[in-house]
Amino acid sequence: AMEVIWQGREGRKLSSRELFVLTYGALVAQLCKDYEKDEDVNTCLDRMGYGIGIRLIDDFLARSAVKKCRSYSETADMIAQVAFKMYLGVTPSVSCSSAAGNEFSLILDKNPLVDFVEELPAERASLCYCNLLCGVIRGALEMVHLAAEVTFLQDRLKGDAVTEIGITFLRKAEDRKHKRNK
Amino acid sequence: AMEVIWQGREGRKLSSRELFVLTYGALVAQLCKDYEKDEDVNTCLDRMGYGIGIRLIDDFLARSAVKKCRSYSETADMIAQVAFKMYLGVTPSVSCSSAAGNEFSLILDKNPLVDFVEELPAERASLCYCNLLCGVIRGALEMVHLAAEVTFLQDRLKGDAVTEIGITFLRKAEDRKHKRNK
Repeated sequence: AMEVIWQGREGRKLSSRELFVLTYGALVAQLCKDYEKDEDVNTCLDRMGYGIGIRLIDDFLARSAVKKCRSYSETADMIAQVAFKMYLGVTPSVSCSSAAGNEFSLILDKNPLVDFVEELPAERASLCYCNLLCGVIRGALEMVHLAAEVTFLQDRLKGDAVTEIGITFLRKAEDRKHKRNK
Repeated sequence: AMEVIWQGREGRKLSSRELFVLTYGALVAQLCKDYEKDEDVNTCLDRMGYGIGIRLIDDFLARSAVKKCRSYSETADMIAQVAFKMYLGVTPSVSCSSAAGNEFSLILDKNPLVDFVEELPAERASLCYCNLLCGVIRGALEMVHLAAEVTFLQDRLKGDAVTEIGITFLRKAEDRKHKRNK
């Protein structure tokens, strides 16, 4: 009977997201204590994210049972529609931003990572609060043999209209060679 | 069609747990860099947890739609069966460990927070790796007007057979007075 009372109206969904978001906030706060310069905090978050990404990819591949992506475009869609949905519960929109087809933007209207953040303090104007995500994406891509640069291009925390993550796939040496020979 | 391919065999469950567990690992590693003494890391994790608990309680109450607990025993069961299940996906067993009925143990056979931890390094033998959890419980309880001490009593990371979190509810002044007058 007790069990039933506790079940509640919305059921007992597994929800580690809030715990993650709050723990992430504690991590960023700690790094801000440790490093005076925003750039150093950003670098540290990116590096930590990289370490997370190279481990998280196994969980992602096992859980999603996805097929191999055949293009940068498919890969970007996969990150937005499957990975973001799975780990953060949101689906960014994707746009390709270069004629060469190797630059993409993930655009987030809502960023759950900042749910508990009002705004950046004035003395932390250059902080990329969510920079861990860039490192996670970079690390995970590297594990499937895709080199990429991942950075925040816009951030609602800094007053931009949306939050935008830029992913630039770095073409492999053989790709370039192949292109030149055509 | 692409959507269907990506759906995968296991569906697309929202799973922030791995991301949380890995981010927590990065947080503990950072604190170990910052503080030489394990005790200082433990204190810091507990304090951060407290800050998380006082915020997380709102999410918990909203999500679980639970009724008010009428005893310490009910409260301990709620933490184990609803909160742990919801945020960490595991259900510790609960035992009452004092005749006075205010001391409880949550016993975890499996602790998801240490999924990626092999063992503690020799020089970190006194580290309470998961001490954040104690702070979270303490903070959340305080917000529903229950003072408690929460500590790790056993830890599989330290070679114990199980992981055991002890919760001691601190009786209110009026409780004690009431008892004396009986």
